[in-house]
Amino acid sequence: MPKPLIIWTYDWVPGGKGSPRGHVRDIRLRWACEEAGIAYEVRTVPFDERGPEHFARQPFGQVPFLEDDGIVIFESGAALLHLAGKSDVLMPRDRQGAAETLQWIVAALNSIEMVTVPWWFIGLSTSGDNPLEGWMAMRLEHLEKVLATREWLAAGRFTAADILMADVLRIPKVRGFGTFPALGAYVERACARPAFRKAKDDQMAHFAAADTCRAEVPMK
Amino acid sequence: MPKPLIIWTYDWVPGGKGSPRGHVRDIRLRWACEEAGIAYEVRTVPFDERGPEHFARQPFGQVPFLEDDGIVIFESGAALLHLAGKSDVLMPRDRQGAAETLQWIVAALNSIEMVTVPWWFIGLSTSGDNPLEGWMAMRLEHLEKVLATREWLAAGRFTAADILMADVLRIPKVRGFGTFPALGAYVERACARPAFRKAKDDQMAHFAAADTCRAEVPMK
Repeated sequence: MPKPLIIWTYDWVPGGKGSPRGHVRDIRLRWACEEAGIAYEVRTVPFDERGPEHFARQPFGQVPFLEDDGIVIFESGAALLHLAGKSDVLMPRDRQGAAETLQWIVAALNSIEMVTVPWWFIGLSTSGDNPLEGWMAMRLEHLEKVLATREWLAAGRFTAADILMADVLRIPKVRGFGTFPALGAYVERACARPAFRKAKDDQMAHFAAADTCRAEVPMK
Repeated sequence: MPKPLIIWTYDWVPGGKGSPRGHVRDIRLRWACEEAGIAYEVRTVPFDERGPEHFARQPFGQVPFLEDDGIVIFESGAALLHLAGKSDVLMPRDRQGAAETLQWIVAALNSIEMVTVPWWFIGLSTSGDNPLEGWMAMRLEHLEKVLATREWLAAGRFTAADILMADVLRIPKVRGFGTFPALGAYVERACARPAFRKAKDDQMAHFAAADTCRAEVPMK
């Protein structure tokens, strides 16, 4: 029997306003495993003190990373592509379908998230106009045109590209998709899937349980 | 005999100060093909007027995209991964080496370029402090630690991950890698490779030839 995969994430992240709970990127891997019926366990590294063991496996001190029978792979996008190699639920096996899935996974990472995450980061730290506002609107407008004509991004069906793109779009979604109705409907559609809901509920429960443990341990 | 691959790029981009010549991302695919000895042709779409045919193949109106025997794949990172499937020069075939190459390709796209390109974009358009300066320095510092201990990123040898990471690092390199000597040496080492030099020379010649053509055609 193959060993279950291990999804590594933080032991805890802060709750409250602006909390990353529900958005920590292990959700991408949980979601993919739930869609594909791949067995997995979740293990943790400390959020507060990121030591050499963590950096040895994730050189930027982030999560998630995926452990698969001796292989450790970091970057949620890379781990997702690794998982996609295990199940055609996540990525079709025909040349055309595989190429479409691959290109939309990278588009989510490098054409959309490359703008949305810096936009979000700047919004957190500065109060004036966001210099990435116009660029983000332009990228979302291009994507709106694509999603106005189809239900899912690649291969005429749900794939790992939708896991990544929908998760990426949850960040700009916080301020509403007023002029981009297809994007709003797409994120709703993706996040209504039972596999997403289970992944999100499990992540929320994971961090809520950590609150309980921390409350029982005296602060240093 | 297999058909040569087609790398699609712009017919022309502006020259002069701040010109993207030498940085248009078809260079990533040219470089990979040169490293792996994969035959390719270069074809063009108009830079000035990006029509429906262009957007049908690249929904963000960008370049490059790769055509491979009926398959068209956009996003330079996706096209690079597609090429990596054709040659173990670009990506080792063992599980460990393949996972390392994949993770560093995605790290270049989503941990480094996700900061460096918005940093560059903001620097072009605003004159004050760059709100991404600190974040970029932190990411480069993490990468410096990795490259201080090894010649290439993955699998103990040059791979497609180095093509992507070195090209990504050419952007922050413009202001110098003062406190990151390993990054500076890494980009020098990668860009000294004959395959990079040929790819860059060919791209420069491609756009220079386009200048000549434009000079012969009366402006509209």
